[in-house]
Amino acid sequence: MTWADPLDRGRFPADEWALVEVAADLVSGDHSQTLFNVANGYLGIRPGSGFAFLNGFHETYRIQHAENACGLARVGQVIVPVPDGTAFQVAVDGVSIADCSLTSRIRRLDFRSGELSQDEDWKLPDGRDFRIRQTWIACLARPELAVTTISVDADGARVDIAALSAPDPGSVTPGDADDPRKAEMPVGGGLERIGAGSERLSAYRCRNSRLAAVVGTRDESDGTALTRYVSYATTPFAPDDVAAGLAVTCDEDISALRETCLRALDDAPGLAVLRDEQRAWLAAFWERGDVRVELESASEQVAVQQAIRFELFQLAQATAAPGENGIPAKGLSGSGYSGHYFWDQELFILPFLSYTDPDRAREVLRFRHRMLGAAKRRASELDLAGALYPWRTINGEEASAYFPAGTAQYHICADIAYAVQQYLNATGDTSLLADGGAEILAETARMWADLGFWADDGRFHIHGVTGPDEYSALVDDNYYTNAMARHNLRCAIAARQHHDATDAELAEWARIADAIHLGYDEQLGVHAQDAQFLRREPWPTANQRRPLLLHYHPLVIYRHQVVKQADLVLALHLLGHEFTLAEKQADFAYYDPLTTGDSTLSAATQAIIAAEVGESELAERYFGQALFVDLADLHHNTADGVHLASAGGVWLALVAGFAGMRDSDGEIRFDPHLPPGWKSLSFSLTVGGERTQHVFSQQAAER
Amino acid sequence: MTWADPLDRGRFPADEWALVEVAADLVSGDHSQTLFNVANGYLGIRPGSGFAFLNGFHETYRIQHAENACGLARVGQVIVPVPDGTAFQVAVDGVSIADCSLTSRIRRLDFRSGELSQDEDWKLPDGRDFRIRQTWIACLARPELAVTTISVDADGARVDIAALSAPDPGSVTPGDADDPRKAEMPVGGGLERIGAGSERLSAYRCRNSRLAAVVGTRDESDGTALTRYVSYATTPFAPDDVAAGLAVTCDEDISALRETCLRALDDAPGLAVLRDEQRAWLAAFWERGDVRVELESASEQVAVQQAIRFELFQLAQATAAPGENGIPAKGLSGSGYSGHYFWDQELFILPFLSYTDPDRAREVLRFRHRMLGAAKRRASELDLAGALYPWRTINGEEASAYFPAGTAQYHICADIAYAVQQYLNATGDTSLLADGGAEILAETARMWADLGFWADDGRFHIHGVTGPDEYSALVDDNYYTNAMARHNLRCAIAARQHHDATDAELAEWARIADAIHLGYDEQLGVHAQDAQFLRREPWPTANQRRPLLLHYHPLVIYRHQVVKQADLVLALHLLGHEFTLAEKQADFAYYDPLTTGDSTLSAATQAIIAAEVGESELAERYFGQALFVDLADLHHNTADGVHLASAGGVWLALVAGFAGMRDSDGEIRFDPHLPPGWKSLSFSLTVGGERTQHVFSQQAAER
Repeated sequence: MTWADPLDRGRFPADEWALVEVAADLVSGDHSQTLFNVANGYLGIRPGSGFAFLNGFHETYRIQHAENACGLARVGQVIVPVPDGTAFQVAVDGVSIADCSLTSRIRRLDFRSGELSQDEDWKLPDGRDFRIRQTWIACLARPELAVTTISVDADGARVDIAALSAPDPGSVTPGDADDPRKAEMPVGGGLERIGAGSERLSAYRCRNSRLAAVVGTRDESDGTALTRYVSYATTPFAPDDVAAGLAVTCDEDISALRETCLRALDDAPGLAVLRDEQRAWLAAFWERGDVRVELESASEQVAVQQAIRFELFQLAQATAAPGENGIPAKGLSGSGYSGHYFWDQELFILPFLSYTDPDRAREVLRFRHRMLGAAKRRASELDLAGALYPWRTINGEEASAYFPAGTAQYHICADIAYAVQQYLNATGDTSLLADGGAEILAETARMWADLGFWADDGRFHIHGVTGPDEYSALVDDNYYTNAMARHNLRCAIAARQHHDATDAELAEWARIADAIHLGYDEQLGVHAQDAQFLRREPWPTANQRRPLLLHYHPLVIYRHQVVKQADLVLALHLLGHEFTLAEKQADFAYYDPLTTGDSTLSAATQAIIAAEVGESELAERYFGQALFVDLADLHHNTADGVHLASAGGVWLALVAGFAGMRDSDGEIRFDPHLPPGWKSLSFSLTVGGERTQHVFSQQAAER
Repeated sequence: MTWADPLDRGRFPADEWALVEVAADLVSGDHSQTLFNVANGYLGIRPGSGFAFLNGFHETYRIQHAENACGLARVGQVIVPVPDGTAFQVAVDGVSIADCSLTSRIRRLDFRSGELSQDEDWKLPDGRDFRIRQTWIACLARPELAVTTISVDADGARVDIAALSAPDPGSVTPGDADDPRKAEMPVGGGLERIGAGSERLSAYRCRNSRLAAVVGTRDESDGTALTRYVSYATTPFAPDDVAAGLAVTCDEDISALRETCLRALDDAPGLAVLRDEQRAWLAAFWERGDVRVELESASEQVAVQQAIRFELFQLAQATAAPGENGIPAKGLSGSGYSGHYFWDQELFILPFLSYTDPDRAREVLRFRHRMLGAAKRRASELDLAGALYPWRTINGEEASAYFPAGTAQYHICADIAYAVQQYLNATGDTSLLADGGAEILAETARMWADLGFWADDGRFHIHGVTGPDEYSALVDDNYYTNAMARHNLRCAIAARQHHDATDAELAEWARIADAIHLGYDEQLGVHAQDAQFLRREPWPTANQRRPLLLHYHPLVIYRHQVVKQADLVLALHLLGHEFTLAEKQADFAYYDPLTTGDSTLSAATQAIIAAEVGESELAERYFGQALFVDLADLHHNTADGVHLASAGGVWLALVAGFAGMRDSDGEIRFDPHLPPGWKSLSFSLTVGGERTQHVFSQQAAER
């Protein structure tokens, strides 16, 4: 290995099938809450925080722009934590736990059982010890359900276990005004409790969005342990119905939600059955999606295998219930990025699903199609034809408050189109085209044709955009954007049987695709990230504070030759067949040293191309940065939630990077580049409905 | 004339020495309040509004960025209206005027007496008529003093005249969230009354900035008319002392302010003397600054002469008390642009002062020097050496909440340097250099040397800036910026005896000035507004809604070839000696059709260059747009205050445009281009301490 294990193994003992934390100092509570979150794609619990997250359950607010302008995003959206029904308060001999001291804690999240367990040792003020054991399952097969058990061993003392009186949800103000990556603040919004609730049911509503959530509980006790079943229900809403402005409304009558909660509780089988269901669900997941590695060093072997499975487990937790909602950048593990859906969903998470669990991938794409109406309205607001997907959103409306690094990233449209095509390649399931896929391709193609223009040089240009590299804003002819737009146009042309484009439109799209400008600098022998980039001033070597975005004014960053995250290098991966190996080598050699990696979306892509161009050690180093981004808190913000795109990136780095997998219209090829010290790498892929097993060994082709 | 008189002369009868409004319909109250504002550079009254403005008296607030970033402006500043001590409430036979109806009103603002008079006819609910006559003087020779008279003729009925109970100043929320040109909103701020006040004195304080204002009154009555003397005093503050953040504080003890108010009232001579003082002040002003025109058409003659004098009178009112504060973009006539000081001060208002009233010009430049400390701190926040003046400010801190059209306009530094040099040229008064002028030149030169960089082509480039054209943001090598930076560097070198620059610095500045990149397109035969502009897509002819900024998203505007206001054309004026006439003709022919004139700063400059390149009719049309911008409310926002830069622009269009005046180091030359139908144009200039009279006749050189 080219890097040292970044984890303190006294604290995080290695285990290939579980994450275990032996917390002696009990600090870093927020980091640990994220790592040990239990979620099932609909509900997510951060143990010990008192809060849970429900996918799609969000507050809206009017974005207050410090200086207004026409067409800026108006509807802020933020995922709102709800009270965690699995949280308890314990008292021993009438002494509240708040007056006791926690002396040690062990948490164990098992990747096969899908159960989190926690053992805590406490000390009463009079010196007596007691122990609390609690377990959690977020039922992967039952989105609305979680179950927890709790037992207290106090050597015969009287023990009281009560539901945690819910913290005032309105007082929760996630966010940090100075870090744009944290959750934004709802102004005048928040959660309010509706009605008095009952012993089993409590209802809440967001003040602005009017979305409601109901939480219900049912308890069972066998004398030593209490088992609590917790169900959640939230107002369903259709993104396509969301009008502009603060028009998200919900049915005033929440009795249906109460019914849903009660039914989920009544239908819930016993704990043993739920545990069996959970284990079975995960057995199927690992059969489809596990990636196994063999390393020469036994200690590295278990460390890397554990981290890989931790990342894959996070993907399982975040994508188990697709369709009704999107996949937030943090899953349901925290409020970072306000619970918004970005391109992370299509380019970093969907590849894993499309090649291991295509039915779920299809549901995610169907969800994007449900947002098409809002995207068409947004295009119209920007005087564009077709559809312009929002850079970040929950309800389909653009929620990016800073357009140079938001709405200007038009490439999200091409990213979504890319994911549609990738699904088609992986599955051969053309029924998606009639089911919304073709409409996505056509409406985004229309947008590109209108956004760009024919210049005097006879080429088609796209000006005033921001590519993936947010350290270069509002540039002309971003290579990634133009090349991905071309791909988008061609996919739309290929799907012509399934949408309403006219012959004239199809001809124009073909003309544009053939003539779109893709910059290349003859002198430097590299492709140009954009029309300005290669002429920018080098970043001053003295300015080493990281990440740049927290230490330098955007004006300082924008005018220098510095890259936040893989941009042109991402094109080298996604559109690899459009480049020769020599071009990839030259481009990577030029751009990689300029890349700060200030985005967690960067390392995996850098690893993939480093592997392809033969930079094995570098590839492994970048892979390590992606692999441990959350476990070792490499970006110092895992407290806000796991970096789910990086989790998807870990899978990509293994499969597309080290195994060198490329897909040409469903024909899968491999060009393996295992890092030094790796004996083998194996995984399954599901292509064309068939699951196949792939094993790669060092210095050997596919067996 | 090439344009029709835009004013309804039934409503605004023409008068060469007064603005008169005969209001039959009594609508457009806000527009009329602006036109008839009375001000003296320190205090400004909008008759009938109940509010007054005091220069420099501002509230601060933390700018809430919808999405934060490092180094963004943090301290919002907004001029806060204070209660108008000249406002009364009248009752007749116990019936409040609020229950009566106004049937007609005549306002007359006399440019020689400096007095506003207003005659109103009212009707009681029982049908009886009464009349109110009120006059106002904002004493031009006594900044802290205004005087008003009021008399009510009610045919013997009982009349009560009381001070208007001040509206709650805290309830004043200027601004319109959707128009960035209006005043911004203080969040959690505003004015509060301090103490109970006395019959003669009331005190107020801004909740955040802690600046205090005291208003005092003294009444005299002769039985038929009431005369009220009104004085104001505000906390003095030194821009250089303002620390970052909300650190503007004031002395808790406002007794000194009360003393100032009382002394001003006690020292005030009688009304007759004040009227004489006012008339004498204006006589001197008109002797220095009047511009007289003779047109062939008698009706056009009086219309144009009246409008010119109205504009010059606004300049008189806004610049009578320079030094303690800057000159807001709206003078003290309204809250538009939050009462901020911009480059308007240096490039559009100071030329008038430097060539007609140099002592006042010197005070304005001294005021800019007092802000140098804050500008040095701001440079440091942007990792720059030297000083970076804020794009907009009251207290010296950057108050622009949208950096692409704010802080990115680095050119304000060169604009200020230009004004310093222009003052030196006009006066020969090199004592300003030792008195701060040279320090301004040196610190701004340092900023430019650090902002740009040496590229491989051996040229010095400045990237990532916004020039005067705010419809092209964050561009590279804006011609105006680079050429003005060169001028700035050369002025700093010329002033080397008076500042601390090292020989190495001076050598580097000279090297940069000689090698700074100034784009020229050989194919088009025009200078390039910036590195991107000439390759942009033409603005879609279908998109004709104006101003663009209120109807199109910035992304739409930025990527097209469309110009908000003279940018390169402004360089053709300010740096005219650097261009041949043929170049000016080619550049103007290219850029003028692309210029929307959505900024009121544009028309005057367009008129100047149109005149120079021989486009006489066009020059006159643009001149008309500048001349009537406020009188005819051409931009539909005169209600927010007069466009003072346009007033200065009117003087420039006459003197630099139609008379073709250019200054080469104090050597004045003229190249007159009188519009068709203009018989003569005459004005005085004060150059090198000598006042000279200049008269130009159609088709004749200077007599």
